[in-house]
Amino acid sequence: MCGITGVYSENEALTSKLAFFSLYSLQHRGQESAGIAVFGDYIHIHKGMGLVNDVFGDKKLSEMVGRIAVGHVRYSTTGESKIENAQPLLVKTKSGALAIAHNGNLVNYQTLRNQLENEGAVFITDSDTEVIAKLMAKELLTKEPEDALKRVSEQLRGSYTLVMALNDTLIGFRDSLGFKPLVIGEGEFGYIIASESCAIDAVGARIIREVRPGEAVFIKNGELEFVKIEDSSRKALCVFEYIYFARPDSVIDGISVYGVRHRIGEILARESPVDADIVSPVPDSGTTSAIGFSKESGIEYLEALIKNRYVGRTFILPHQSTRELSVKIKMNAVRKNVEGKRVVLIDDSIVRGTTSRKIVDMVRSAGAREVHFRVGSPPIISPCYFGIDMSTREELIASNRKVEEIRREINADSLAYLSLDGLIEAVGLEKGELCLACLTAEYPVDVSEAMECRRC
Amino acid sequence: MCGITGVYSENEALTSKLAFFSLYSLQHRGQESAGIAVFGDYIHIHKGMGLVNDVFGDKKLSEMVGRIAVGHVRYSTTGESKIENAQPLLVKTKSGALAIAHNGNLVNYQTLRNQLENEGAVFITDSDTEVIAKLMAKELLTKEPEDALKRVSEQLRGSYTLVMALNDTLIGFRDSLGFKPLVIGEGEFGYIIASESCAIDAVGARIIREVRPGEAVFIKNGELEFVKIEDSSRKALCVFEYIYFARPDSVIDGISVYGVRHRIGEILARESPVDADIVSPVPDSGTTSAIGFSKESGIEYLEALIKNRYVGRTFILPHQSTRELSVKIKMNAVRKNVEGKRVVLIDDSIVRGTTSRKIVDMVRSAGAREVHFRVGSPPIISPCYFGIDMSTREELIASNRKVEEIRREINADSLAYLSLDGLIEAVGLEKGELCLACLTAEYPVDVSEAMECRRC
Amino acid sequence: MCGITGVYSENEALTSKLAFFSLYSLQHRGQESAGIAVFGDYIHIHKGMGLVNDVFGDKKLSEMVGRIAVGHVRYSTTGESKIENAQPLLVKTKSGALAIAHNGNLVNYQTLRNQLENEGAVFITDSDTEVIAKLMAKELLTKEPEDALKRVSEQLRGSYTLVMALNDTLIGFRDSLGFKPLVIGEGEFGYIIASESCAIDAVGARIIREVRPGEAVFIKNGELEFVKIEDSSRKALCVFEYIYFARPDSVIDGISVYGVRHRIGEILARESPVDADIVSPVPDSGTTSAIGFSKESGIEYLEALIKNRYVGRTFILPHQSTRELSVKIKMNAVRKNVEGKRVVLIDDSIVRGTTSRKIVDMVRSAGAREVHFRVGSPPIISPCYFGIDMSTREELIASNRKVEEIRREINADSLAYLSLDGLIEAVGLEKGELCLACLTAEYPVDVSEAMECRRC
Amino acid sequence: MCGITGVYSENEALTSKLAFFSLYSLQHRGQESAGIAVFGDYIHIHKGMGLVNDVFGDKKLSEMVGRIAVGHVRYSTTGESKIENAQPLLVKTKSGALAIAHNGNLVNYQTLRNQLENEGAVFITDSDTEVIAKLMAKELLTKEPEDALKRVSEQLRGSYTLVMALNDTLIGFRDSLGFKPLVIGEGEFGYIIASESCAIDAVGARIIREVRPGEAVFIKNGELEFVKIEDSSRKALCVFEYIYFARPDSVIDGISVYGVRHRIGEILARESPVDADIVSPVPDSGTTSAIGFSKESGIEYLEALIKNRYVGRTFILPHQSTRELSVKIKMNAVRKNVEGKRVVLIDDSIVRGTTSRKIVDMVRSAGAREVHFRVGSPPIISPCYFGIDMSTREELIASNRKVEEIRREINADSLAYLSLDGLIEAVGLEKGELCLACLTAEYPVDVSEAMECRRC
Ligand SMILES: Nc1ncnc2c1ncn2[C@@H]1O[C@H](COP(=O)(O)OP(=O)(O)O)[C@@H](O)[C@H]1O
Ligand SMILES: Nc1ncnc2c1ncn2[C@@H]1O[C@H](COP(=O)(O)OP(=O)(O)O)[C@@H](O)[C@H]1O
Ligand SMILES: Nc1ncnc2c1ncn2[C@@H]1O[C@H](COP(=O)(O)OP(=O)(O)O)[C@@H](O)[C@H]1O
Ligand SMILES: Nc1ncnc2c1ncn2[C@@H]1O[C@H](COP(=O)(O)OP(=O)(O)O)[C@@H](O)[C@H]1O
Ligand code: SF4
Ligand code: SF4
Ligand code: SF4
Ligand code: SF4
Ligand SMILES: [Mg+2]
Ligand SMILES: [Mg+2]
Ligand SMILES: [Mg+2]
Ligand SMILES: [Mg+2]
Repeated sequence: MCGITGVYSENEALTSKLAFFSLYSLQHRGQESAGIAVFGDYIHIHKGMGLVNDVFGDKKLSEMVGRIAVGHVRYSTTGESKIENAQPLLVKTKSGALAIAHNGNLVNYQTLRNQLENEGAVFITDSDTEVIAKLMAKELLTKEPEDALKRVSEQLRGSYTLVMALNDTLIGFRDSLGFKPLVIGEGEFGYIIASESCAIDAVGARIIREVRPGEAVFIKNGELEFVKIEDSSRKALCVFEYIYFARPDSVIDGISVYGVRHRIGEILARESPVDADIVSPVPDSGTTSAIGFSKESGIEYLEALIKNRYVGRTFILPHQSTRELSVKIKMNAVRKNVEGKRVVLIDDSIVRGTTSRKIVDMVRSAGAREVHFRVGSPPIISPCYFGIDMSTREELIASNRKVEEIRREINADSLAYLSLDGLIEAVGLEKGELCLACLTAEYPVDVSEAMECRRC
Repeated sequence: MCGITGVYSENEALTSKLAFFSLYSLQHRGQESAGIAVFGDYIHIHKGMGLVNDVFGDKKLSEMVGRIAVGHVRYSTTGESKIENAQPLLVKTKSGALAIAHNGNLVNYQTLRNQLENEGAVFITDSDTEVIAKLMAKELLTKEPEDALKRVSEQLRGSYTLVMALNDTLIGFRDSLGFKPLVIGEGEFGYIIASESCAIDAVGARIIREVRPGEAVFIKNGELEFVKIEDSSRKALCVFEYIYFARPDSVIDGISVYGVRHRIGEILARESPVDADIVSPVPDSGTTSAIGFSKESGIEYLEALIKNRYVGRTFILPHQSTRELSVKIKMNAVRKNVEGKRVVLIDDSIVRGTTSRKIVDMVRSAGAREVHFRVGSPPIISPCYFGIDMSTREELIASNRKVEEIRREINADSLAYLSLDGLIEAVGLEKGELCLACLTAEYPVDVSEAMECRRC
Repeated sequence: MCGITGVYSENEALTSKLAFFSLYSLQHRGQESAGIAVFGDYIHIHKGMGLVNDVFGDKKLSEMVGRIAVGHVRYSTTGESKIENAQPLLVKTKSGALAIAHNGNLVNYQTLRNQLENEGAVFITDSDTEVIAKLMAKELLTKEPEDALKRVSEQLRGSYTLVMALNDTLIGFRDSLGFKPLVIGEGEFGYIIASESCAIDAVGARIIREVRPGEAVFIKNGELEFVKIEDSSRKALCVFEYIYFARPDSVIDGISVYGVRHRIGEILARESPVDADIVSPVPDSGTTSAIGFSKESGIEYLEALIKNRYVGRTFILPHQSTRELSVKIKMNAVRKNVEGKRVVLIDDSIVRGTTSRKIVDMVRSAGAREVHFRVGSPPIISPCYFGIDMSTREELIASNRKVEEIRREINADSLAYLSLDGLIEAVGLEKGELCLACLTAEYPVDVSEAMECRRC
Repeated sequence: MCGITGVYSENEALTSKLAFFSLYSLQHRGQESAGIAVFGDYIHIHKGMGLVNDVFGDKKLSEMVGRIAVGHVRYSTTGESKIENAQPLLVKTKSGALAIAHNGNLVNYQTLRNQLENEGAVFITDSDTEVIAKLMAKELLTKEPEDALKRVSEQLRGSYTLVMALNDTLIGFRDSLGFKPLVIGEGEFGYIIASESCAIDAVGARIIREVRPGEAVFIKNGELEFVKIEDSSRKALCVFEYIYFARPDSVIDGISVYGVRHRIGEILARESPVDADIVSPVPDSGTTSAIGFSKESGIEYLEALIKNRYVGRTFILPHQSTRELSVKIKMNAVRKNVEGKRVVLIDDSIVRGTTSRKIVDMVRSAGAREVHFRVGSPPIISPCYFGIDMSTREELIASNRKVEEIRREINADSLAYLSLDGLIEAVGLEKGELCLACLTAEYPVDVSEAMECRRC
């Protein structure tokens, strides 16, 4: 998962700064690296490892002057994290300069790369973004941008939401299944494209509308134009955007993320009620659902756990004998709130279960009499091939275990998951409009190639 | 405000790591710089600007081997932030090596510095910690550590909670008014001293007890000894530790911070009820009180505002015309939760009022019908001279304004502060056990010297 | 101008270190950036801005394990210096991984790039090395490495000495005119390829022989094989390697650089004798020729100038009013040696003349009675298109001035250049074996395309 | 050994830049760290590890505005190199701010430190400069700067050349034996004080005169005043300034360093003639003497060795099996120049002899028929306690060996040292004006305390 953005502004000194603010508010979508390309009289590109605010300073942003900016924050999916993987990817083609920021994952990457290599292409990176760049360059030789994009998208399979700068044009594009969100805003400064609406808010703009599955938006000379690129018979918006990824203050495809999570809590309370003294989130992902659960159940909302706000991805655990402290470092129980109480804990999902176990134990040893676990999604039983690094099937605790077994493993007094129907109800879209593959193992596109050669 | 810690462990490779974890959990007490000194066969010291996790890596910690560690995180009080101000301060004296971590502020600093300079002392820093170090060194020439500490503390006036390493002894000490907290824990590894109990929890230790005002604890050869250093007729624990500074999961002088903040919310609801649809915190400082307010008032708890978790102290606002975005970058309203609603916002306190105004406006422009503001403390009317960088009296919005005037300035439909009695009730200590000076302008020690020469 | 190297060693831990030492001794060929790629079980690549010793540390080198290493130091030719331009360039192709280090400049770059772009290729860099990489990848689709290299070299025009790693093979190659040198050595560890023989000495190996113009060397499975790739009817070894670029202790195409420079001094003394008290080099480039001049003329050798050894390329001249100090900062006169004396200064060449003027003035104001200038090369009248960033024709002081005019501009009492015949005699090769284009404006290949579009 | 400087200029923006240029030209006196303090409306100080040009950039220098600057480059004497040791040392005293840059070493450091500690002083560093700072502060309480400096200098024993800023006064001071040089210059900008005259040249100023032993210079309000501080019955200028430390273009106490080294070569040629084909320096320290030797002996001057110009102090030798390459990396023989020849090598001195041995072997294996070694100083038989980190007596090859034994160890065909009388003649001062202690074991001050407790 990554965050992508594009800005068009005729106030050329402002463009890079707006891209910066946009990425800043999309930071939760990726903390490994950040990058911005600006197209003006010159082409500027700057990328670095770490948070947006560490990579970009005032001086750097002031140098990056131009009408169009493309930005990206990257989520580290695989082990090694390298600057080579940072985006946007900037290439120079016969048809001009092209910068691409990509959110998603191609499931036919290897086939496409083989084809291109067979034609003599050389690859600098191992990313599917470079495949997209090369296909675009090839089609642009003979076609206008729109037609080139059409021809390229016919060849791509999987999840590929893109923001691109092509010479003087800013392009946003969402694959025909619309796995990953993309939204457009308008402000005094011009236009903004972003993964989530919180970025539109952050720059003081207002939402125009979402880019639709299979649709592109072209912004050029101050004009914005929507173009249908691919037919889209079925939509497959990643349900985990609502459950976990997106910021609660974002609105995706017209639906408030906060609202979905709150309803998840309410439905969970109805589906799997429990006699308890307090209901408490596993922070931060469980917070909104816990509030909903409390409201519906009438059980008092009280925080059992405080999460250290300074915990980052690069947290070190230097010493063998201190490794077991890891969860304690990230979270701590509030003894006063749980002592002698029956506690319901709410989290958004369970992946491997190891953290959940530690949390349950922590609440117990702070004095809780009972610890009940409620999960804001159905069990995750199958891997995602669309850009989310869930564990492999073997690591997924729910891939081969019954709920009762899982309950025992995480040491809870009771455990319940949200039902699939409950989830769909909470979201408020049709089942056919969502990707639910990791919950159902029914993939909206053929993933057989990706299944064989697991690369993320 | 700073965070301080000390660790004693005969597992010499573990000591620095435990100090690291302790500081990590005290990070909210200071983000400007971090430092650890370890006394073993060699004396190691490492300090740097930024977060604990940025300053210390595995390699550095592994080199720092010894039985005793002293650690410090620093809060930037004044404009310029420099590595020279980072602590612990390590000095070499006739009587050996001395490392000092200090939380607080002397109100007779200038007098003491003058005295020392008159005796020919030279100063490398501008910190009152160097004054303490020099006084200690002088007294240690002729006295045992205990007596030296007694003689030094007689000369100091103000707030001076200390953790020190003196050769093979770890010392914790709290001034006779006990402005700043200090607590001792015991684990399998040995002993830990820290500003807050959350650090004791973080290293898997259990609380022994608080260090009492005027008391010192000496840890040497695995033995822990409490020694009364100064008589303490009156206690003056900073009430803002409960209101704002401390982590909600900490327990200070036996009282849960979470509990205090929850009761503040409840009392506020009783003292200043309001007809509304939802109650919502200004995150993060208002969260616990908002939960309490909701419980007491029966008004639904729902988050009106989401705070960007990646906002740091060093946030840049590069462009003139983007400066007004500042609050938007840090926080965003959840339109769905506030649209058409009457909203009660809860925050811990109001200092200058500018941020409160922007927040009220943000909630309004997201569609709220009414915005009521409730503050979890009485008005701040007077500066703090004990180590907290509140603004000068001129900047304090409440120093010369009635509540109604403030209400107008922050553009709220109604505004109410917690009463002083309500605050004291919420804390649950006697009035004579607390410092309330910034709320009452009655200082528990003579601050006339500090008033004249404002330095922090 | 750049320095390139390749190492083959079955002692896999040693390979990267030998490449490091080799680059270290080629540092004078480029100080802008340094890079090494190692092919082993994994492919490692590391590049950075600055000196070899700054870019590579022990830790990094220890991680880079494999049989084959390719290294590069880059000379900043154009204004902006960026990490993107650092070499080796590593690409992944249908036929495997390919790392290229290139010394030289293509004069038909734009044509080749256009051709490739017309086929849909996208470019990440602006370097001609990427063109070579793409051509290689294309030919490798259908051909064995040797034949691919043949086919590629047919298409390249200009100067292109290469060291490449292609999967398990290390390749050295010199263009058919042999502009830039390349020499092979053998040691206990295996084989080494390098721009200059000083690198062979540095790793304790012995010279096998030079790679001949149009020849390639393939090293694989411990076997070394020379292969003729292109016919080479005429050789065009850059004469400035002898005059200026190479280290004096190197031997190029069998001829000692030190020897050439010494003979240049001797011939200069015969061609343009002068009555003087001392002969002195402009350090460092004039040193060897000054020694030769002194020997032939019998005039005492004494240093008039001392050069600051710490002057680097990145020297800053922060203040307007201090800019005129620039030469003084780099060099200083030894008053005692020049006071009241008639001084002959020897330098290797004059490009723009501004530095020469400042040096003459400096020696004069240190008390010299007369200052005579002798130059170890004929006037530079035409730009180089083969990888050397001499100024444009407009900036070359000799491109449109008589010697007498130049003498006046640099304020010397007399000025003489080495004759072309004298230079050829000093080198000891046939005229037809050398490139002399910048001295004669007769280019050994058609440079019309490069003349139009000046890029280096 | 270190380099120190001071600048006084009423062009306040220029002061720091002049100090920078001065240090830049004193870089050979210390490469470990660099620092500058500027006294203006504010006091600025900046220090860092590494070369002057790495520590100071344009931005930093532009911020440092004021009339007075004090600068320092530090030579790493002892193992650990730390920023804490960087100078100038800035302290704040009753009498104002004091910045000190110190070149030298106290031989009664421990006694003075004990005295100060007994009075309760605490020490932040382990440097004798802090002792000087504290003594100055103490005396300044009751005395004017002149008298304070007198009283302090009475207490100091050893080598202590100082440049200090005290509020609005710039002070230069040389101990009564004048171990280390200090010279004053005047330019349009104002005044400059520096260790060597090459720094005066570098800023375009002219030499006024040396500071005399026991003398101080005070510069204030644009007025310069010389003051006799200590009686100086005997002078003891370090003879190694002429032999090795100083830059050849400097003039010390009126005598050209280049001249001394040239005469050393001439006298060596007379004292220890040898039948040979070429005479060659061990670069760089042997160069000037080799030129003199060639002139006197009539043997041709030709470079047998080329030294890599990029070798720095921080050179890494990463691999066990590559460590023996170390000398090869730093220097290489010019085979053509030595093959079949009888070579005389000239170096300034021999300390441990290991490098000399490797150089002799290198020249031999490049084909030299005979290798004769001539040393430009008498044997070093005793340690220096005045700030030069020669090895301990045990490591000095000449401390317990005859010349013939040393010849065998370094594998030379013949070996000769300059005589003590020859050295004194070459310098041209009286024996009683020089320190020759490391050559004679007769120390100009009592060093017994320093001998016991070896610290540098
Ligand atoms: N500013 C924010 N405020 C509240 N929640 C946020 C914010 N930014 C991201 N989130 C939510 O935080 C959750 C992830 O945080 P958390 O659960 O603490 O971490 P983890 O990924 O380790 O489970 C996601 O559900 C995301 O929607
Ligand atoms: N891990 C944590 N979880 C919740 N609250 C915390 C945590 N750490 C510190 N706090 C509280 O956060 C508050 C400060 O945060 P916040 O209000 O967001 O910032 P600001 O200082 O800008 O008002 C304090 O009241 C502190 O007690
Ligand atoms: N280690 C070395 N010793 C002597 N000369 C060297 C060395 N390395 C490079 N050179 C020579 O130094 C010259 C370049 O240095 P110099 O003249 O000082 O710099 P510039 O390029 O500014 O003229 C070249 O002629 C090169 O051959
Ligand atoms: N710019 C310079 N030009 C020539 N010699 C210099 C210069 N700067 C310093 N020196 C001399 O260089 C010598 C030290 O260099 P060198 O002999 O190469 O190193 P080492 O200290 O390893 O023996 C000293 O004698 C010093 O006087
Ligand atoms: S498989 Fe799961 S995580 Fe992946 S896109 Fe589909 S719903 Fe989202
Ligand atoms: S004045 Fe206020 S902030 Fe300061 S110590 Fe007292 S209660 Fe705390
Ligand atoms: S033009 Fe001059 S510098 Fe260029 S390759 Fe030819 S001889 Fe060398
Ligand atoms: S002992 Fe030697 S090195 Fe030290 S000051 Fe005296 S002459 Fe110089
Ligand atoms: Mg979570
Ligand atoms: Mg707050
Ligand atoms: Mg030169
Ligand atoms: Mg030397």
